[in-house]
Amino acid sequence: MKLTAAAKGTFAIAPTPFHDDGRIDEASIDRLVDFYAEAGCDGITVLGIMGEAPKLDAAESEQVAVRFAKRAKNLQIIVGVSAPGFATMRSLALKSMDAGAAGVMIAPPPSLRTDDQITGYFKQAQEAIGTDIPWVLQDYPLTLSVQFTPAVIRKIVMDSPSCVMLKHEDWPGLEKISGLRGFQKDGSLRPLSILCGNGGLFLDFEMERGADGAMTGYAFPEMLVDVVKLSQAGKRDAAHDLFDAHLPLVRYEQQPGAGLAVRKYVLQKRGAIASSAQRKPASGISGAAKAEVDYLLSRVARYDARANLQPRATAAE
Amino acid sequence: MKLTAAAKGTFAIAPTPFHDDGRIDEASIDRLVDFYAEAGCDGITVLGIMGEAPKLDAAESEQVAVRFAKRAKNLQIIVGVSAPGFATMRSLALKSMDAGAAGVMIAPPPSLRTDDQITGYFKQAQEAIGTDIPWVLQDYPLTLSVQFTPAVIRKIVMDSPSCVMLKHEDWPGLEKISGLRGFQKDGSLRPLSILCGNGGLFLDFEMERGADGAMTGYAFPEMLVDVVKLSQAGKRDAAHDLFDAHLPLVRYEQQPGAGLAVRKYVLQKRGAIASSAQRKPASGISGAAKAEVDYLLSRVARYDARANLQPRATAAE
Amino acid sequence: MKLTAAAKGTFAIAPTPFHDDGRIDEASIDRLVDFYAEAGCDGITVLGIMGEAPKLDAAESEQVAVRFAKRAKNLQIIVGVSAPGFATMRSLALKSMDAGAAGVMIAPPPSLRTDDQITGYFKQAQEAIGTDIPWVLQDYPLTLSVQFTPAVIRKIVMDSPSCVMLKHEDWPGLEKISGLRGFQKDGSLRPLSILCGNGGLFLDFEMERGADGAMTGYAFPEMLVDVVKLSQAGKRDAAHDLFDAHLPLVRYEQQPGAGLAVRKYVLQKRGAIASSAQRKPASGISGAAKAEVDYLLSRVARYDARANLQPRATAAE
Amino acid sequence: MKLTAAAKGTFAIAPTPFHDDGRIDEASIDRLVDFYAEAGCDGITVLGIMGEAPKLDAAESEQVAVRFAKRAKNLQIIVGVSAPGFATMRSLALKSMDAGAAGVMIAPPPSLRTDDQITGYFKQAQEAIGTDIPWVLQDYPLTLSVQFTPAVIRKIVMDSPSCVMLKHEDWPGLEKISGLRGFQKDGSLRPLSILCGNGGLFLDFEMERGADGAMTGYAFPEMLVDVVKLSQAGKRDAAHDLFDAHLPLVRYEQQPGAGLAVRKYVLQKRGAIASSAQRKPASGISGAAKAEVDYLLSRVARYDARANLQPRATAAE
Repeated sequence: MKLTAAAKGTFAIAPTPFHDDGRIDEASIDRLVDFYAEAGCDGITVLGIMGEAPKLDAAESEQVAVRFAKRAKNLQIIVGVSAPGFATMRSLALKSMDAGAAGVMIAPPPSLRTDDQITGYFKQAQEAIGTDIPWVLQDYPLTLSVQFTPAVIRKIVMDSPSCVMLKHEDWPGLEKISGLRGFQKDGSLRPLSILCGNGGLFLDFEMERGADGAMTGYAFPEMLVDVVKLSQAGKRDAAHDLFDAHLPLVRYEQQPGAGLAVRKYVLQKRGAIASSAQRKPASGISGAAKAEVDYLLSRVARYDARANLQPRATAAE
Repeated sequence: MKLTAAAKGTFAIAPTPFHDDGRIDEASIDRLVDFYAEAGCDGITVLGIMGEAPKLDAAESEQVAVRFAKRAKNLQIIVGVSAPGFATMRSLALKSMDAGAAGVMIAPPPSLRTDDQITGYFKQAQEAIGTDIPWVLQDYPLTLSVQFTPAVIRKIVMDSPSCVMLKHEDWPGLEKISGLRGFQKDGSLRPLSILCGNGGLFLDFEMERGADGAMTGYAFPEMLVDVVKLSQAGKRDAAHDLFDAHLPLVRYEQQPGAGLAVRKYVLQKRGAIASSAQRKPASGISGAAKAEVDYLLSRVARYDARANLQPRATAAE
Repeated sequence: MKLTAAAKGTFAIAPTPFHDDGRIDEASIDRLVDFYAEAGCDGITVLGIMGEAPKLDAAESEQVAVRFAKRAKNLQIIVGVSAPGFATMRSLALKSMDAGAAGVMIAPPPSLRTDDQITGYFKQAQEAIGTDIPWVLQDYPLTLSVQFTPAVIRKIVMDSPSCVMLKHEDWPGLEKISGLRGFQKDGSLRPLSILCGNGGLFLDFEMERGADGAMTGYAFPEMLVDVVKLSQAGKRDAAHDLFDAHLPLVRYEQQPGAGLAVRKYVLQKRGAIASSAQRKPASGISGAAKAEVDYLLSRVARYDARANLQPRATAAE
Repeated sequence: MKLTAAAKGTFAIAPTPFHDDGRIDEASIDRLVDFYAEAGCDGITVLGIMGEAPKLDAAESEQVAVRFAKRAKNLQIIVGVSAPGFATMRSLALKSMDAGAAGVMIAPPPSLRTDDQITGYFKQAQEAIGTDIPWVLQDYPLTLSVQFTPAVIRKIVMDSPSCVMLKHEDWPGLEKISGLRGFQKDGSLRPLSILCGNGGLFLDFEMERGADGAMTGYAFPEMLVDVVKLSQAGKRDAAHDLFDAHLPLVRYEQQPGAGLAVRKYVLQKRGAIASSAQRKPASGISGAAKAEVDYLLSRVARYDARANLQPRATAAE
């Protein structure tokens, strides 16, 4: 089923699992898909920044996208197709859709500066992939160094009928969500799904500002799923209580560069992937950092038993 | 008393209080100093990024530095003297020390790239202010876009005997603290005070990695003071419990650009400053954001009564 | 006489002359003004990037601006008032105009990215200096890293009636001049003087695209004056012949960072300033570079006798 | 024959020829190779920035590299293999060498900042391609925004025995060449070929500072070949005379972004490629710009008859 502007819920940003020697670990892709499904996710986004996409060659990117899509069943798969050139973008987009992906995601190249450069780029990107592939606009200035105003996002969306979702991860970003929802109220912007990234650091309030859900790689997607549902059900305090219990770990994972090592470490502990290996260049995780993560897990587990991966640690409380 | 490498504890980063019409509010400077003293701070850093320093002209910068220094009594005052040129830096440094400041703080200009450019700049900066003024090196890549390796910090410190403190706010930054403390263990780096900024977002673990305290502008400096003390006393769980209770608000304040409006809003609520006005260009705070902050305060207050600024909100829990 | 949108001709970008020990050399300011007057310049721009403006403190900036303005007589003085904050900008603008300056010049801070940030900044800048001070918009992405589209320039100009001139130094920039002149033809942009910088590297064609003259710091302003006049008189080949004869040296001077040392070296050789000293941080000029400049001068002198500063070198031809 | 540190002369940076509809034009690749051979070039560098490399997908990159290599005969082919990830880099490097390339060229990703990040990256890059493929280090801060000090270049070269050449295009860059040659004199740097890019804008003096030749895309490679030879033969004035005659056009071609359109326009006029088409995103060339290039050609032709592509223009002189 193709992605539409009505998409809601939680899409996990998946890492790409590697064997310790750097080869793609296809069995772990399957386990990861099942893990996200069991956690209650609605979709999975693969080959994003967290997915180490630039470290794969073209054949490997296709291999990963296809494997995720084949295993997905009821989950929608979104494939990151950002690339330095449109030929590569188009090629991966077509192959992903053929394999059953629900849509693709496109981030801006870091060189874009002016509003015209930005809107021009995405117009050309859509021409490259064609109008029949639903796509997600990624707005992540912290990492991508490109700044979209709400009006620029509106123009991109209104120029491209197949743009159905915003991956919102501006920081700060709460007023941006309110601004976009305001555009829809005044009739100047058509329906658009807004899922929130930036590690989930502001998911609690993003939902209250009008987001439709989460799209991020936190290693306990169950929390994202529940916070989104509680918030949608109007259970404000309960949503914040759960969110706040996880926030110390959410924050620890959201360290630029280093965060991926933390996530792979936790996902491995949880059995979702076989190895926490990354391809070079990579930030590792020190012994001190592992101990800090273990301690944080034990603290989260006091509130949320699903984080109880370390029997002794909780006993020590 | 001049700043030394033995400095410990909590230094508040102070905003510059303005009247609603943009004039400097000297009475609020006095109240702010008293507020930080009552909160248990050991020092105050003025005219930093959060202090809107670049928005003051030279005479106003001197006026602010002097007013803080005169009121400070037992608190050590550090004056941010970062400037596009060394003449301005020197001038403000000398006047601040004459007025009783304990030291000055210097951030790198954003254009620096190579290791040699960085170490060369700070060598010239120290020549500009002279060797008898203790100074703090500010390491804040997120905002300043200059990246120091631990080895570069070591070289800067070893080249300049009057560099006595690092304002650590790299992100991620935990391994950097461990690295610097490791240099001291192997004898290649002399004693250096490390106080942590970056909004306090990692203060809990930074203390455990060897930091000497906090230097940031969180609007509840009492929390910083207590977490530093609990951590120094080895009360790990208690330190994290208090820290985690505040983390949702800490995180909300640490939004680039928007954070200052939040801090001034809370400080005004707490009576520490008369107006939350900022000089242009400034990010404001919307009604929605104010309500979010009020809600966060009410939640913090469930654990830490000092955050109870809104009787009705807590009653509603 | 205040600057207007009818300004034409050549405005020299002046360096700030220092004594060897770094003090401002006021006598050389007077000589420099006379030198530019004799070269046929219509105005002088002081305290620009080339004028080492950020290296002066507030009192020195005022001192330099006033000294240039007092000596200027028939030349219009434009004072660079770019500053990290509006208080400093306003203060220097008012003092400069009081001393007889014709207008001021404002460059964007490097942090500006989106079109709205840019237009918003200049609106606030104009509010800061007041509507009665004519000002020049500096568009220099190579150094300032801010990119203006022609439509953004139009908006800035139309929002601020006192913006009378564009210092054009985008690179590439020829189509931008054509675009702005096109806006004027279609009635969407009011009259605006366009003077060209970027070291003069494209002055030959910039004039043909509709520029009103030059505003740059080439150490032979006589060439700029003549090329502008020849071009305005429709003597295309003659303009290019003169320009091309100087281009090897123009190019040599237009090396980022290093160029100022070259210009001060040549200006000292020509007797316009007493010392080629720069304040720190500064790029020096090596012996090899001096010899290269001398060789270039000797080559220019074969076509333009005014460059004959080295009798022996020309004899060697 | 593999590339060695003894390489000298002129390596043309080749554009990638496309048909008007964006397909790769293989016949024009053959013509281009013959054109560069007839111009006296010693080698050709393909799939560089000017070669629109990021706009090709993986299969196309291989296709282009192989086609150039097959046609090359006596010319050495260097293939740009810069890529966001090492898997892609390795894959293209191996395929290029199999097809007969003499070596590969690697540019840094724009995110690198500290000296350690830079040297670490190139160590990993060499591991990725293996130690038996000679490679060229590209130093182009203007476009790539990464700054190498001479000491960092030395470390990269000394760490990687297969690094045999520097593509020097820092700006300013003359002192850097002198610095590197100085390292060789003091024995701290092993032999290294230095070929100069940056559009050839400083080739005249770069040769005098110790460069071994040119590696750039100027549409009259004959000039580069002759200036390199004249300079190597010690004929200083003759080298400069020829260089200066071309400089107005060299400068026009060296406009960031726009320059490629100019080069393809001239190469098409010269019959070296069938179409001047670029893939999107691309800067076009306006009618005004074409007329300016034609005028510049006519002026170069007064000195160098090889630029006489427009009989009437020269007759009009």
